[in-house]
Amino acid sequence: MAVQKPSIPKGTRDFSPAELAKRYFIINTIRDTFSTFGFQPIETPSFENYDTLMGKYGEEGDRLIFKILNSGDFTQGVKQEDWEAKNPQKLTPQISEKALRYDLTVPFARYVVQHQAELTFPFKRYQIQPVWRADRPQKGRFREFYQCDADVVGSNSLWQEVEFVQLYDAVFTALNLKGVTIKINNRKILSGFAEVIGESDKLIDFTVALDKLDKIGEEGVIKEMSERGISAAAIEKIKPIFGLKGSFTEKLAALSAILATSEVGRKGIEELTFVGEQIAALGLQTALLDLDVTLARGLNYYTGAIFEIAAPAGVQMGSIGGGGRYDDLTSIFGLKGMSGIGISFGLDRIGLVMEELNLYPETLNSTVEILCLNFGNAEALQSMKLLQQLRKEGKKAELYPEAAKIKKQMDYANKRGIPYVAIIGESELQKGTYILKNMLTGEQEEREFSK
Amino acid sequence: MAVQKPSIPKGTRDFSPAELAKRYFIINTIRDTFSTFGFQPIETPSFENYDTLMGKYGEEGDRLIFKILNSGDFTQGVKQEDWEAKNPQKLTPQISEKALRYDLTVPFARYVVQHQAELTFPFKRYQIQPVWRADRPQKGRFREFYQCDADVVGSNSLWQEVEFVQLYDAVFTALNLKGVTIKINNRKILSGFAEVIGESDKLIDFTVALDKLDKIGEEGVIKEMSERGISAAAIEKIKPIFGLKGSFTEKLAALSAILATSEVGRKGIEELTFVGEQIAALGLQTALLDLDVTLARGLNYYTGAIFEIAAPAGVQMGSIGGGGRYDDLTSIFGLKGMSGIGISFGLDRIGLVMEELNLYPETLNSTVEILCLNFGNAEALQSMKLLQQLRKEGKKAELYPEAAKIKKQMDYANKRGIPYVAIIGESELQKGTYILKNMLTGEQEEREFSK
Repeated sequence: MAVQKPSIPKGTRDFSPAELAKRYFIINTIRDTFSTFGFQPIETPSFENYDTLMGKYGEEGDRLIFKILNSGDFTQGVKQEDWEAKNPQKLTPQISEKALRYDLTVPFARYVVQHQAELTFPFKRYQIQPVWRADRPQKGRFREFYQCDADVVGSNSLWQEVEFVQLYDAVFTALNLKGVTIKINNRKILSGFAEVIGESDKLIDFTVALDKLDKIGEEGVIKEMSERGISAAAIEKIKPIFGLKGSFTEKLAALSAILATSEVGRKGIEELTFVGEQIAALGLQTALLDLDVTLARGLNYYTGAIFEIAAPAGVQMGSIGGGGRYDDLTSIFGLKGMSGIGISFGLDRIGLVMEELNLYPETLNSTVEILCLNFGNAEALQSMKLLQQLRKEGKKAELYPEAAKIKKQMDYANKRGIPYVAIIGESELQKGTYILKNMLTGEQEEREFSK
Repeated sequence: MAVQKPSIPKGTRDFSPAELAKRYFIINTIRDTFSTFGFQPIETPSFENYDTLMGKYGEEGDRLIFKILNSGDFTQGVKQEDWEAKNPQKLTPQISEKALRYDLTVPFARYVVQHQAELTFPFKRYQIQPVWRADRPQKGRFREFYQCDADVVGSNSLWQEVEFVQLYDAVFTALNLKGVTIKINNRKILSGFAEVIGESDKLIDFTVALDKLDKIGEEGVIKEMSERGISAAAIEKIKPIFGLKGSFTEKLAALSAILATSEVGRKGIEELTFVGEQIAALGLQTALLDLDVTLARGLNYYTGAIFEIAAPAGVQMGSIGGGGRYDDLTSIFGLKGMSGIGISFGLDRIGLVMEELNLYPETLNSTVEILCLNFGNAEALQSMKLLQQLRKEGKKAELYPEAAKIKKQMDYANKRGIPYVAIIGESELQKGTYILKNMLTGEQEEREFSK
């Protein structure tokens, strides 16, 4: 067999033990918090039927879905004319019947519809699994990455919105990532804006432009709105929302004036007021709640609350989470009238923020705690007895496998950053003791060994 | 969009919260035990480069690997003559450059070679991730399933063999799965047999037949050996091994006589003796160690010890784990002289055995512990304050989202198997108390509530 220089596909990653210690810390913290909020895990297959995924993410999404080539003679059954025309769009569904999941939302909708008879609604689930996208890889963007979602379907109670604000606060507090901002908006506010300026038919154009206020500023937004066909009079009318300032309550008061004539707008204000009031009464541990009327995210998707999480002030990072309420997710699979609300956590970005702010616990140790040195078989056997005791106490410990020179064994301990070595030489074997050496301070003490 | 009847690809599974509670129990128990033995996790990408995987698993394996169709216009760059000939073997590498991993072993070898400069040897890793095979699905055989492997590379010390026997014992003890048999053999014993009967060139035929003793009995094995061209005289000579009985030591003594003239055979006995003696001195917690000279598994692969785990007596189940020593795994990627040894755990089968023997802990509760009933917004807000307290104590608790009829809320608690409901009605709200009701016994008590 020819020798191959090993590599991995672009946009994918190997994770080392040190990297995984950090990832597992984040994932386990999120899992534990989800659990206390009554969310339960589900897992779905890595690949779904071609038709389950295609057509759900727009044309661009369809293109970015990884398709799996049919096994066996995949050319059989392909129409000869399509084969000859070499048209990939026409050929793909004929040679591929499965595709890697693109997100966790569509598989979740499929799961709810398929298993509706077994589920009790409202159904609260979380899901932490990898997804795959044939995107152009770049810094921070991968072709395989984890998503981490929590959703409730089957309830349109606004207490869910309150719960999700608290859940975000609880997770980031447990991660020791203090001072994140939970930005909230409501689709109905955006619809209200479009209504009062008389541009309801341009809602999407309007919000796409508005969503960029952060990045391109007021002038940029005005220019883009204008280019998208929104009239100068309408833009003039909407200008007050660019400068909305003050507390949650003050912003709501200002909005009430702006949206006074819009029924849907007033409904949006009512919903936001409810959530704001409950959160004010309950308090947040370390996060801040802010009303951001420019927030749109996947507008076509959300029907009520819209969330997005900003990293603590001073950290340059896109959003580290987001979500919102949707009313029609499961109807693509035939189940109507199932209101839902969900949020997600951006694991990779949260990891980068944790790294930058140095927030991982110091005890996050990925390596073994104690290495038993090896001085030959009789001593090694005694060391193995010591290991049995240590491991039963939950300690991470191992034996150096060969009776190599002591320097080599010590080097191994140092390279791996192992904090203690246990030494059982001939004399300790006789006495039934062992020496425990602190590799950092060099201190050592002799201990009794019961066996 | 046309409504689709939702389903998943054959051979794949959705996992419900109740199923995952059991799976996570097994996986976390194994992880924790691996950890105390000094193994550290790695994770590799779900798909590897086509060339990394192809040619490593034989012709049948190559066929069962799921290939990913190239994105974009995959027909570009395909040789016109191959396109016209519609030959899937020739077309596949031209339209697919990535494939889903088939096991964890080849990716591990690739990882070690690719990252050798960063690693400290001996390198001990574990890996628990899904793999994919385009196998015909049947009961207990899936197209997506988890593998769970622990390996050490870079040491040929026999203490590793001792460690892995202890590791198996520790994991199954921690799972409360007592009485498994750790069957051990050694490739050198099998080579010795072939040598003493003068059929060294038919080692594979010999061991493939011998490996079936369990299933087809002595007569069957003799018939198969004969069909595979092993002489009657040779078979006569080997007959004593069919009936090997007694303790580990007794079997070794009998083998010493049989293999007296084979150097490689004597070496195998020496290795098994070492492992047997150390394990006798150290003891096993709940597992049994047995010498099984018919055990071959992937013979071409293993060079020393061979392991296989049998479920406790009385449980009908194929092996629930296996492994062995290999000397040349990383050489396919250009790194020679790296001896390794590894074992795996069959997660799905272990789950089936746990189910059959009813071994899951009773406390394995996947659902929330306390449901707060909802009697309207003022009471719900007070319930949310109670939830804040409960969740900080690590309790799993939630609010029923709507102020629905009490019967509907109680039905929900019962259907989900929630053991307690907390009731804050108007009177409790006034008094600053809540009622905790045990859903099983119906008992309820009023508790003070500090806020």
